[in-house]
Amino acid sequence: MTERRHDREFVRTFFTSPTAVEGEEDSAKMIRSASQLRGMQAPDVWVPDNEDATAPSMRDEGVENIIEVVSENGADFPGEIHPRMVWHRDSPATRYQGFQHMLEIASSDTGAIEHIDGFVIPEVGDIDDWKKADEFFTIVENECGLEEGSLAMSVIIESGESELAMGKLRDEMGKDTNNLERLFLFVDGEVDYTKDMRAMTPTGELPAWPELRHNTSRGASANGCIAVDGPYDDIRDVEGYHERMTENQAKGMLGIWSLTPGQVVEANTSPLPPKTGSWLLDVDGEQVELDSEDGVEVYDGDRMSLEATDGGYELRVGSDTRTLDEDELHEELLGLTSYVPSMDDIVDSMEEFEAAKEAGRGAIAMERSATLRIGDTEFDISTDRMWDEATYQAAMTPISLFQDVYENRPDQHDELEERYSTGVVERAMEVGL
Amino acid sequence: MTERRHDREFVRTFFTSPTAVEGEEDSAKMIRSASQLRGMQAPDVWVPDNEDATAPSMRDEGVENIIEVVSENGADFPGEIHPRMVWHRDSPATRYQGFQHMLEIASSDTGAIEHIDGFVIPEVGDIDDWKKADEFFTIVENECGLEEGSLAMSVIIESGESELAMGKLRDEMGKDTNNLERLFLFVDGEVDYTKDMRAMTPTGELPAWPELRHNTSRGASANGCIAVDGPYDDIRDVEGYHERMTENQAKGMLGIWSLTPGQVVEANTSPLPPKTGSWLLDVDGEQVELDSEDGVEVYDGDRMSLEATDGGYELRVGSDTRTLDEDELHEELLGLTSYVPSMDDIVDSMEEFEAAKEAGRGAIAMERSATLRIGDTEFDISTDRMWDEATYQAAMTPISLFQDVYENRPDQHDELEERYSTGVVERAMEVGL
Amino acid sequence: MTERRHDREFVRTFFTSPTAVEGEEDSAKMIRSASQLRGMQAPDVWVPDNEDATAPSMRDEGVENIIEVVSENGADFPGEIHPRMVWHRDSPATRYQGFQHMLEIASSDTGAIEHIDGFVIPEVGDIDDWKKADEFFTIVENECGLEEGSLAMSVIIESGESELAMGKLRDEMGKDTNNLERLFLFVDGEVDYTKDMRAMTPTGELPAWPELRHNTSRGASANGCIAVDGPYDDIRDVEGYHERMTENQAKGMLGIWSLTPGQVVEANTSPLPPKTGSWLLDVDGEQVELDSEDGVEVYDGDRMSLEATDGGYELRVGSDTRTLDEDELHEELLGLTSYVPSMDDIVDSMEEFEAAKEAGRGAIAMERSATLRIGDTEFDISTDRMWDEATYQAAMTPISLFQDVYENRPDQHDELEERYSTGVVERAMEVGL
Repeated sequence: MTERRHDREFVRTFFTSPTAVEGEEDSAKMIRSASQLRGMQAPDVWVPDNEDATAPSMRDEGVENIIEVVSENGADFPGEIHPRMVWHRDSPATRYQGFQHMLEIASSDTGAIEHIDGFVIPEVGDIDDWKKADEFFTIVENECGLEEGSLAMSVIIESGESELAMGKLRDEMGKDTNNLERLFLFVDGEVDYTKDMRAMTPTGELPAWPELRHNTSRGASANGCIAVDGPYDDIRDVEGYHERMTENQAKGMLGIWSLTPGQVVEANTSPLPPKTGSWLLDVDGEQVELDSEDGVEVYDGDRMSLEATDGGYELRVGSDTRTLDEDELHEELLGLTSYVPSMDDIVDSMEEFEAAKEAGRGAIAMERSATLRIGDTEFDISTDRMWDEATYQAAMTPISLFQDVYENRPDQHDELEERYSTGVVERAMEVGL
Repeated sequence: MTERRHDREFVRTFFTSPTAVEGEEDSAKMIRSASQLRGMQAPDVWVPDNEDATAPSMRDEGVENIIEVVSENGADFPGEIHPRMVWHRDSPATRYQGFQHMLEIASSDTGAIEHIDGFVIPEVGDIDDWKKADEFFTIVENECGLEEGSLAMSVIIESGESELAMGKLRDEMGKDTNNLERLFLFVDGEVDYTKDMRAMTPTGELPAWPELRHNTSRGASANGCIAVDGPYDDIRDVEGYHERMTENQAKGMLGIWSLTPGQVVEANTSPLPPKTGSWLLDVDGEQVELDSEDGVEVYDGDRMSLEATDGGYELRVGSDTRTLDEDELHEELLGLTSYVPSMDDIVDSMEEFEAAKEAGRGAIAMERSATLRIGDTEFDISTDRMWDEATYQAAMTPISLFQDVYENRPDQHDELEERYSTGVVERAMEVGL
Repeated sequence: MTERRHDREFVRTFFTSPTAVEGEEDSAKMIRSASQLRGMQAPDVWVPDNEDATAPSMRDEGVENIIEVVSENGADFPGEIHPRMVWHRDSPATRYQGFQHMLEIASSDTGAIEHIDGFVIPEVGDIDDWKKADEFFTIVENECGLEEGSLAMSVIIESGESELAMGKLRDEMGKDTNNLERLFLFVDGEVDYTKDMRAMTPTGELPAWPELRHNTSRGASANGCIAVDGPYDDIRDVEGYHERMTENQAKGMLGIWSLTPGQVVEANTSPLPPKTGSWLLDVDGEQVELDSEDGVEVYDGDRMSLEATDGGYELRVGSDTRTLDEDELHEELLGLTSYVPSMDDIVDSMEEFEAAKEAGRGAIAMERSATLRIGDTEFDISTDRMWDEATYQAAMTPISLFQDVYENRPDQHDELEERYSTGVVERAMEVGL
């Protein structure tokens, strides 16, 4: 069966730091400071980046810096450490250099390798190219007395070839001649992918590549790996970063690259359920979050209005006004509203379903009701949603992610308990087990 | 060549019913009533569901119920019957149970198997997992004196692994060691797929998974099978169900799961051409169906207006007003309008093209004209569309579907003739032969 | 490594002409006139079309016409010449006919084959079907004294089978038993693809097939080939044709089919950077190109307005008005604006980056600033964009395309120099080398 073979089942954040910066007194400055990140600012996977973020002339020094900083600070770093090496499907020289760097890091007598969970290999090509990298990992492990397969290998998907390779992995993994079970993260690299595909846009902004992200997520799912989206360049655009993550989560791609500790905080938080639930109203095609005031969900924009009339209601959306009776209005508003459950809500529903299952029931109705206020008019809505085993299992994803985070990131316990309350955290850790 | 190997070339509807309901006097109640559906309420493929719709503790009884109800009512059921068995790519126990249930049904001396066209296998994994299921079918056929390959196998695509498997089938089908030619339906199962992909959305609603649906439709097309979309949970949302089907049809996925006889009616009807044609007007980005009044196509909303002026026209769309001469207006309105042809229109065009081909012409212009009324102003538009062999072939799809339905579903003849008139039905059955 | 194996690295235009038209005095009329196209009206790849554009009864005559016209005019034709032959994955008779036609053209003592760069094979199926066609090319080459592999093979992707085949090519190319390295263009054929997928839309218009176009572009990228989109039927709809090309370019599909010399001009021009840069403003979700007036970028529509107030600004978008201070407004407008660089701008940026790299810097900030006028209010915006090696490489795509065009199409030099000025052309030809 397809199993997850690594300590982390979920990775929210993939944070890169240049390994050697020219012109600084301490060329290791960036990774030295990154190694001291803690809590929500610390990523699930930290990537001292000896490839694109570091100038080619500085990469040998970058390897020394990795060894020094990781051997000093690696033991205390709360996330996993996966340095990125150089590699290119079209260049044997680059591949050999990547191998030498890995060997140097792994064989250093500083013990740095004890704190390193794996390496990231960029610019991989087709499946035979993945095998070349895997073979170098095996040789490094053998030379350095590490268990075969113990170093995780993550790849950057930044070519059509590697996108296709994800569809062939299941035919190769498990063969005697490789250790491809070491594969951990599939990370999209949209900048180089765009170059490889020779795509272009009028303004030079990156295409959205929805199919690539689907295929990466599917490849991860089919091979027990974890899908991570590439960097979001516009660091100031926090809203855009969140929209991208929400889009990715609907594709099963729960992790994303972060370029700054600020992005790490956003990306560590985004896949976690919200602290409080909220109602959304579809106003003329746009989802508007309603303000909750004393238990009433309020829309006070001017694109929708609701008036009670003799024996019914007038509902105006944009310039369309309709006369509806109470039942019709209820039906209409049910269609226009949706609820974003909080962590507490999700745990409640799961506990309720577990109790029902315990009592021999396979499906139960979960009620959700609210009082809406549109303009000056209030109206109550209420709906049932059927929960069965499949609903329960699907709802489990954010909870499993939370549990994985809570187990592996003690440095985030305070922030998580502050976010949700200790009681909710405790219940969330019990549900589904 | 890729051929279709089953009686039905099209399947509009895949209707599941629980095989055994706990706490009812007659646990077979649901399949007993489903087995009596006729006409538009009866699906093309009926699926007594011994997997998710039935509680695990009731599944042995579900098998007995299938045998009883199908042996009694199967001969008269107007659609095909494909019970869903239990199966899981990750569980040998579940797979063995699925095999035992198939064997029990097929070997029953009630003759139930004579009315069963195949079985549905959920939760399949990669291509080797499909082969395991196929092998069990072969053993069942052999044990029960059935012709090898005579039982159709349909699969639920609800994992990344099985999505990828569809791309590998052509390499495996036709080998001596399997009977994969028995494959019939590829059915998307979005709830479990969402779980397998670990996707999540704020409100818990299912992602749309456009790439999955494309890949399923493509896999079906490349292997002579039929693509079917998964369940649409919001049973009351008839409009949403139709929008989903229209979207699916543009992907070549012409069938969909139905959860109620009401949904069966909608899904049996949706891929059939409409009884009457209609004009669409693009009003500021939204497609509006025009009202036909005495041969004039009328738009009386307020987002578009048209006024005749000295020597020209003023066309207002939203807040943009443009002055156009007659030719410019004609060109503009041609761009904004489109026509949804009726069954009668399609048959007319095909007959006209067939006559032209008979006369040695490879391409002809089909004219389409209308009088539009926007506000108080009327304006005539007229356009030619070139038809060649490829246009003709593409227009054939809804007609082929209709012919397949008419041939295989005598119980729907009355409703089809009432919808289209006997004359149109007769001509539709002759065209393209 | 994946390399490009043909003279052209980019193909903008794929122009088909019927090889033999019935009822004309000169049945070769269409290809005779097409063979005389020059400059922007002449395509990168010209396709005398002996398949769908020519009636089946005229195809033997079409072969004679190809021989005659190409031997006469082929030497002077400025683009490449790739006639389309008949072929079908499901018909051995059609495949054999395609072989015979190729052999007839290649063995003609007129020398026509000297001006023919390859052949286009439509309706291919899975990878074994591609090999059948490739084998016929090899036999033709051998019979006619041509170097093995010298004739390029382009395929039309118009079935699910062939879409899947593109994912398998890397496993087959390079084997002793084939010459699949001859593959050149992957051309989508959406009309027949729609038929093969059995897709349908209410109005009969073609589905957009975004996944197919992605997969074709990816397949081309992974195999050193070139992706080309299928025909755009509505010849009068120039704007729609450009929108389609812009969409395709974001997918890495830089070529498109052209049905008329007018479409050839549009498609030859579309992937080239514009002559002058322009600013875009996002107005309530729609991208509006600003008018440049004396160095000020002007928006004078009514959906957005900007007023200076005491100590700040009021920015109205649609019916939403917000009060912002100067910094907030600057941030907001940066988010809403984007710049479409001209050829000159791109060359400037690349030269600047090259100089910086020469000086040992790996990343530099490129400044872009403008004065906006919204209503009567002017406001200056300015932003930096970081350029590193990856940005530089991605920006190279349109320049590489331009260089490929300029080198291979001397007949377009005048028009290119008129478009950009001689100075810009010269600098564009030097950059990135």
